[in-house]
Amino acid sequence: MQRVRIAPQTGYGLKLKRGQVLRIIDPEGEQVSDVMAFAAGDKAEKLSSGRSIDYNNTIYLTAGHVLYSSRSRPMFTILEDTVGRHDFLLTPCSPETFEILYEGHEGYHPSCLENLAKNLGPFGIDEDDIPTTFNVFMNVAVSPGGELNIGPPLSKAGDHVDLRAEMDLVVGVTACSAEKSNNGSFKPIEIEVRER
Amino acid sequence: MQRVRIAPQTGYGLKLKRGQVLRIIDPEGEQVSDVMAFAAGDKAEKLSSGRSIDYNNTIYLTAGHVLYSSRSRPMFTILEDTVGRHDFLLTPCSPETFEILYEGHEGYHPSCLENLAKNLGPFGIDEDDIPTTFNVFMNVAVSPGGELNIGPPLSKAGDHVDLRAEMDLVVGVTACSAEKSNNGSFKPIEIEVRER
Repeated sequence: MQRVRIAPQTGYGLKLKRGQVLRIIDPEGEQVSDVMAFAAGDKAEKLSSGRSIDYNNTIYLTAGHVLYSSRSRPMFTILEDTVGRHDFLLTPCSPETFEILYEGHEGYHPSCLENLAKNLGPFGIDEDDIPTTFNVFMNVAVSPGGELNIGPPLSKAGDHVDLRAEMDLVVGVTACSAEKSNNGSFKPIEIEVRER
Repeated sequence: MQRVRIAPQTGYGLKLKRGQVLRIIDPEGEQVSDVMAFAAGDKAEKLSSGRSIDYNNTIYLTAGHVLYSSRSRPMFTILEDTVGRHDFLLTPCSPETFEILYEGHEGYHPSCLENLAKNLGPFGIDEDDIPTTFNVFMNVAVSPGGELNIGPPLSKAGDHVDLRAEMDLVVGVTACSAEKSNNGSFKPIEIEVRER
């Protein structure tokens, strides 16, 4: 079992076999990791926020919940979760995110969408294939009126989430690039693939 | 300007030119209409709940808000909205929705996903292309703990929403098939394409 370090503002792509567990670790605390998954060999079947939120009847998925594909099949089961607050509403930050939402922003900014596309490219997946991601450790509150409030992640150094693959998968993982998601600093993410 | 009636538990597909306005009308009240849109001529660019929620900073989109594509370009502007409560979190009901969420359900059940796919098929779009839809008149509350609560639509007979196309589009519209979304009854939806 090897631990892979994903440098700040970068991403990583990997294959998971059914039954393997992907551990996503926040080594320093208050960092976000956008996760996207596709059925191995058929990128038309992908992680679906809408199906997952609907079938679990909550926007906050945590240990015991199942993440579903666009074809309503289980993709991941969350086995362990030492934080309990993740986002499944928002798309990964993109170059346009910084233009539209970051006042005073100018020039190039790294983004999770680009980092997912770059690292999933070798598996035949491109930017247009990437919808709303499962944003591990991202802390988004919704007011009764529907307004979003993005707070610092609740994760502390060493916190982790374990995702068991329920089918063979291609997975993209990032160390998030957006200042507003990780309390203004950029940190690494670490992952492990565990056999169970 | 012709009014089209979409029969209960069915759907409709159409093209919109940039600048045209799609009016979605609930003729009897308490009915839901799932709406999906693709860029004309390039189905890889599609309506994105994640981008729209992020850029408007709310889960409840209404008059004045812009609905964005997966490439962060404006697809629709909501011009008028006599209801003010619509859902943009959930995928259209599918055969699996009824198996997973409807206790005691048996046998075939019509669904918005099938009705969108059937009516978008002639435009080259299939079921796998359809993500989270803009669910007009669907009334989904989110508790502070993240739990979803699907209530009867707030729409009364004759209420409507006007969506101005910000690019040439292919659009699918349904009269929803799910009992839990429309207070237990199935009703038609009506649409008009208006020139402005």
